[in-house]
Amino acid sequence: MSVVNRTASVVVDTARSPHARLRALTVDAVRLDDEFWAPRIRLNREVTLPTQLELLERTGRLANFRKGAGKESGRFEGFYFNDTDVYKWLEAAAWTLATDPDPLLDRQVDEVIQVAADAQQPNGYLDNYYVAGDDEKRWTELYRTHELYCAGHLIQAAVAHHRATGKTTLLDVARRFADHICDVLGPAEEGKQPGTDGHPEIELALVELARETGDRRYLDQARYLLDVRGQGLAGGDEYRQDHKPYRELDAMVGHAVRIIYLNAGAADIYAETGDPTLLTTLERLWDNTTTKRMYLTGGLGARHDGEAFGDDYELPNARAYTETCAAIGSVMWNWRMLLLTGEARYADLMEWTLYNAFLPGLALNGREYFYVNPLADEGKHRRQPWFECSCCPPNIARTIASITGYFYTLSDAGIQVHLYGQGTAEIALPDGRTVRLRQQTRYPWDGDVAIEVDGEGDFTLSVRLPSWCEQGATIEINGEPASDHLQPGSYLPIQRNWSTGDVVRLHFPMPVTLIEAHPRIAEDTGRWAVTRGPLVYCVEQADHAGVDLNALVLTHGVSFMPEERPSFLGGTVVLTSSGWEERSAFDWDGRLYRSVDPTAEQELDTHQVPLTFIPYYAWANREPSAMRVWLGHD
Amino acid sequence: MSVVNRTASVVVDTARSPHARLRALTVDAVRLDDEFWAPRIRLNREVTLPTQLELLERTGRLANFRKGAGKESGRFEGFYFNDTDVYKWLEAAAWTLATDPDPLLDRQVDEVIQVAADAQQPNGYLDNYYVAGDDEKRWTELYRTHELYCAGHLIQAAVAHHRATGKTTLLDVARRFADHICDVLGPAEEGKQPGTDGHPEIELALVELARETGDRRYLDQARYLLDVRGQGLAGGDEYRQDHKPYRELDAMVGHAVRIIYLNAGAADIYAETGDPTLLTTLERLWDNTTTKRMYLTGGLGARHDGEAFGDDYELPNARAYTETCAAIGSVMWNWRMLLLTGEARYADLMEWTLYNAFLPGLALNGREYFYVNPLADEGKHRRQPWFECSCCPPNIARTIASITGYFYTLSDAGIQVHLYGQGTAEIALPDGRTVRLRQQTRYPWDGDVAIEVDGEGDFTLSVRLPSWCEQGATIEINGEPASDHLQPGSYLPIQRNWSTGDVVRLHFPMPVTLIEAHPRIAEDTGRWAVTRGPLVYCVEQADHAGVDLNALVLTHGVSFMPEERPSFLGGTVVLTSSGWEERSAFDWDGRLYRSVDPTAEQELDTHQVPLTFIPYYAWANREPSAMRVWLGHD
Repeated sequence: MSVVNRTASVVVDTARSPHARLRALTVDAVRLDDEFWAPRIRLNREVTLPTQLELLERTGRLANFRKGAGKESGRFEGFYFNDTDVYKWLEAAAWTLATDPDPLLDRQVDEVIQVAADAQQPNGYLDNYYVAGDDEKRWTELYRTHELYCAGHLIQAAVAHHRATGKTTLLDVARRFADHICDVLGPAEEGKQPGTDGHPEIELALVELARETGDRRYLDQARYLLDVRGQGLAGGDEYRQDHKPYRELDAMVGHAVRIIYLNAGAADIYAETGDPTLLTTLERLWDNTTTKRMYLTGGLGARHDGEAFGDDYELPNARAYTETCAAIGSVMWNWRMLLLTGEARYADLMEWTLYNAFLPGLALNGREYFYVNPLADEGKHRRQPWFECSCCPPNIARTIASITGYFYTLSDAGIQVHLYGQGTAEIALPDGRTVRLRQQTRYPWDGDVAIEVDGEGDFTLSVRLPSWCEQGATIEINGEPASDHLQPGSYLPIQRNWSTGDVVRLHFPMPVTLIEAHPRIAEDTGRWAVTRGPLVYCVEQADHAGVDLNALVLTHGVSFMPEERPSFLGGTVVLTSSGWEERSAFDWDGRLYRSVDPTAEQELDTHQVPLTFIPYYAWANREPSAMRVWLGHD
Repeated sequence: MSVVNRTASVVVDTARSPHARLRALTVDAVRLDDEFWAPRIRLNREVTLPTQLELLERTGRLANFRKGAGKESGRFEGFYFNDTDVYKWLEAAAWTLATDPDPLLDRQVDEVIQVAADAQQPNGYLDNYYVAGDDEKRWTELYRTHELYCAGHLIQAAVAHHRATGKTTLLDVARRFADHICDVLGPAEEGKQPGTDGHPEIELALVELARETGDRRYLDQARYLLDVRGQGLAGGDEYRQDHKPYRELDAMVGHAVRIIYLNAGAADIYAETGDPTLLTTLERLWDNTTTKRMYLTGGLGARHDGEAFGDDYELPNARAYTETCAAIGSVMWNWRMLLLTGEARYADLMEWTLYNAFLPGLALNGREYFYVNPLADEGKHRRQPWFECSCCPPNIARTIASITGYFYTLSDAGIQVHLYGQGTAEIALPDGRTVRLRQQTRYPWDGDVAIEVDGEGDFTLSVRLPSWCEQGATIEINGEPASDHLQPGSYLPIQRNWSTGDVVRLHFPMPVTLIEAHPRIAEDTGRWAVTRGPLVYCVEQADHAGVDLNALVLTHGVSFMPEERPSFLGGTVVLTSSGWEERSAFDWDGRLYRSVDPTAEQELDTHQVPLTFIPYYAWANREPSAMRVWLGHD
C-alpha cells in the first residue's frame, strides 16, 4: 500500500490490495436507466435523503452534535449510537453527490459536516454521547456504548465523501479521530489501553481509511482490534463475538449485525494482509451461514432475543428477525468476498440479498422502513417512518445510493459483470482505454440481457450466470451461440478483441420455481415457496379476500402465469396461479389441540381459489394484510 | 373474614372466603403410597431439600442475609431477587414438616428463619439487595428489582410455616414487613408513596396473610397493588403488565411468570371481594391462554425474548421457553380458579400441567432442573443443578412438597376428588365427623381407581372425570354401574349416605391418543403428538439409534402397545409402535433450500422402524439425546 490521493468513488477500494482479485468501479461509472433500480435511486435522492435529514434534526440527532460542540445546551439525547445515523446519512449523500451532483445537497452535506467538525474535541475525540454526557467515562465502556462503532461510521462517511467530492473536510475530522484512537487503544506494552469494540464496524472503516490515506497505521489498528477479540475486552460474551478468538469461530453466533460487520472487516484486513487464517475463517462462517442459518430470502438473524443468529436450522417465519441492517451487512460482506476471490457464489448471494432481504426494508414510497422482516405475518407488522433505534433507515439510504457500484468489477484480465439492469457503464481498462458497456434488459422481470460494447480492447468479459438459473443460460456473441461452461453459479469468461457494436446476448430462463426447505427447518416442513428469477414471491391477504392463507394448499399439478402489471406495486410481474383452500370441517373455535382418529378420513371444506403471488420485497405496501412466503402443499 | 388462629396447612385457605366454592384439605390430610408421586415426595425430602440448602449457602444466598444483618461484611451478591430462593426453600421445608415431621429439618428451618429474622430492619424492612447494597434506593426501583416480589415470597413462606408448624417466628417477620409495606406504599392522598410491583407475587401472598392473621389491611393492600396497575407505576410496559389496567387485559402478554402470578393474586382477591370484573378478566385470560397461547404440555410462555407469551398460535417447539416457574404459576392459578368456581376445567389443566409442564423441570435424580422446557431438542438442552437465576429449583421443591394438598377439596355439600393417586385421605366433614377415603390405583399408568370409604356420612362425593378421557369413564358404586352424566371434563356428584366399605370404582380408558394442533401453529402442521391418559409422550434419540427423528413418519394405520417397564426411567409405561423413516434421497449436505419439480415423485429412502415413546416428563434423563414431542405423519 502506498500513499495515494484519489477521489475515485468506489465502494471498497481494493485497487492496490495485494490479496484481492477484483477492484470496484466508481459508483458514477454506471448509470442505470432501468425500470427497477433507477426509480429507486431517484426516490432515494428526492424523498429518502430529504425526509431523513429532516428527521435527524427533528429527533435531536443533529442537536446532539451541537451540544457536543457547546453550541447548544443540554445533555445528549437518545441512544448512544445516534451519532451514526448522521454519519450514515452523510455517506448516503456523498454517494449521491458522486452519481448526481446537486448544489443544494452539496451545501447540506457541507453544513452537516461542519456541525460534526464543530463537535470534535481538540484531541480529535468525537462522540457526543460522552462529550455531551458522561464525558469522564470515555473509553471505559467500549463493550457497551458503541464508541468505536460510531467512529467507524464517521470514517466510512468521510472516505465516501472524499471519494465522491474530493473534499477533505470530513476526512480530516475522521483522520484526527482515528489518530486519537490509534494513540489511545492498543497493546499495554506500547503504553496504550487494551480494548476492542462491542459492536464491530470500525475494522472495515479503518482499512478503507488506510487505503484512502495510504497510512498503514489504520490497517494495523484494525488488525489489533480484530486480533484481541476473545480476551474479554469486549464483554467476553457470544453476543458480542468476544467469547473466543475470531479465528476460532465456527458458526454465526450472537448479534447478527455485529458478526456480519466483523466479517466484512476481516475480509478487508485479508485483502491487505493475505493472512490465510482469516480467509479460512471467513469461508467457514460463510458456509455455516448459507447451509444452516439463512432464510430463503437471504435474510440473516433468526432471533428477536439478542437480535441474533439462532441454532442451526432455527428459522421461524413469523418470528424471523432478519434485521434490514443484517441484510445490508451481508451485502457488504459478500461484496468484499467477491472482490477477494472473484467467486460467483458471493455475487449470487449479494444479488439475492439485495432483492429479497434488503429491499423489503424499504417502502415503495421511499420513506417508511422495516427494521424486522418476517416471512409470515398477520397484517400487524408495518413499516415505520423512523425508529428510536433508527440504524436501518440511513443504512438503506447509503446502500441504494451506492448500488451502481456493485454492478461491475475490473481485474487485470478484464471486466466482470455481476448484476444485471439496464444502463450504461463507462469503464477505464488497465491499458488506459475506455470502453462503454450498455445493458439492454428488463431484468429482474425478464431474463434477456443484451450487453453492447462501445469501444475497443482485448480483454475478457466475464458474465455471471446466476445460480438461480438452474435451467441453464444460453448466450450468443454477435449472434453466435456460446455453448461451453454454462454452469449456473459461475462466470462465463469471454476473451476477445472487442470492438464497437459487439453484442453479447444472455438469456436466463425465468420459469416459476417451487422451493422446498431442508427437513430440519421445522416451520417449512410440508411447505413450498415460490421464486422467479432472482425474486422470492409471497401471497398477501389483500389479493385473497376471505381466503384463509393457512389453509392454502399448492398441489403437485400447480402452474403459474407471470403477468406484467406496470402500475401495480411500483411496476411488477405478479404470478397468477390457483391453489386449494382446504379448511378442516372441524371447528377449532375454543381448541388448540384435539385428538384425531387416524383411520378416519379428515372432512375438508375444499375450494379451488385463484392465487396472486407478489414479490416479497413489495409486501405491506397496501392496507394491513396477512402475508406468507411459505405455503402448504399436498 | 374474621380473626382466626389456625395452623391448618392448606395451600390457599378459602375456608372463610365468601366467594370461593371449595376449600382445601391440609397437605398432611392426604398420604400417598403410590408408585408415582410418593417416591417423588420422598426424593424431594431426602435429596432436593438438603442439596438446595447447601446451594443456598454455597452460592451466597444465605450470606446475603448475614450481610444484611451486619453479621458478615461485604455487599449483596447475585441477582436482586436471590432472597426469594431462601424463602421458597423455607416454604418447601414447611410443607414437608407438615407431611413428614423431622427434627433435623425443623431445626434447619428454625436456623434459616433466624438468619432471615436477623436481617430484618427495625422498621420491618427486609430486602438484602438494598440493605446490603444501595440502601438509599429502597422503594425507588419497584418496577425493576423485585422488592415486593421478594416480600411476597417471604410472606408465602411465613404463612406456610405457620400453617405447618404453628410457630410464628417467620410469620412475625413477614407481618412486620407487610405492615411496613402497608405504611409506605399506597395512595398519595393517604400520604403514602404510590407504587406497585414490577413482578407480581405479593398480591396472593398478602391475601393469604390476611387470611392467616385475620387482618383485612393486607387484603386491601393487595387490592391497591392490583388496582393501580396500568398507571405506569410499574414501568408502564406490557412486559410487566403495566401498559393498561388489569381489568382491561384481553390476552396473556409480557413476561409469563409475572402475568400468571398476577392472575393467581387476582383470583385470591376475588375470593375475598367477589368483584365480578376480576372474575371476568380471569376467565377471559384463561380462555386466551388455553385457546391461543398454550403448549400441548400445558407449558406457558413461547418466547425466550422477555421470557414472555408470544402472539396467538406462536408456539415453536425447539425454541419453546415454557419456564418451569410458569408451569408452577399455572398450577397456582388453576388451583385458585378451581377453589373459586369448582369447575372441572381448572382441575383438568392443573393435573395436565403437573404431569407435562411442571414435572419435566425436575430430573429423576431430584437434583437437576430445567428452567426452559423445549418440546423438541437436539440433545443439547440438559438439566442443571442450579442457575445464576435459580427461581425454578426451589419453586419445584415447594410444589412437590405441597402436592398432596391438591388432591381433594371440601364444600358444604361434600368432598371433591380432583387428582388420582394411590393413598389415603383423612377428611373432616362439615358435620364434624371424619371420613377416610382410600384410593387404590396405579394412576397415571392405569385408569382404574377404586375409592374405598371408611367412615359414615351423608354427603356428595364428586369425582372428576378427566377431559382427556374422551372415550368416557365408567363408574360402579358398590358394584352397581352409574351411567348418568359421565361427561369428560366434569365432576360426577355421587350423593349418598356413605358407610364404611362403600367402594366407588372408576374406570378411565387409557388408549393411546394421537393429537393434532390448530392449523395456525406453524411448527405443528403435518405433525402428530402422542398422549396416553394424562401424559404427553415423546421420542428420544436414545431409543432410536441411527434414526433421523426429523424423517420419522407416523402413518394413518399406526398402532401402539403400552409396555410396563418398572425399572426404566424411574418406572414407566412406554408406548411401543412402529413408524417409517422417510429420508429424502436428496443429499441436503450444503443446501438449505432447493427447487422441486412438483410433477416428479420424490425419491425416498424408506424403512419401517420400531418406535418407543417415553413420557415427556422423563426426557433428558439419559445421555444427551435428541427429542421430539411432535412427529411427522403421512
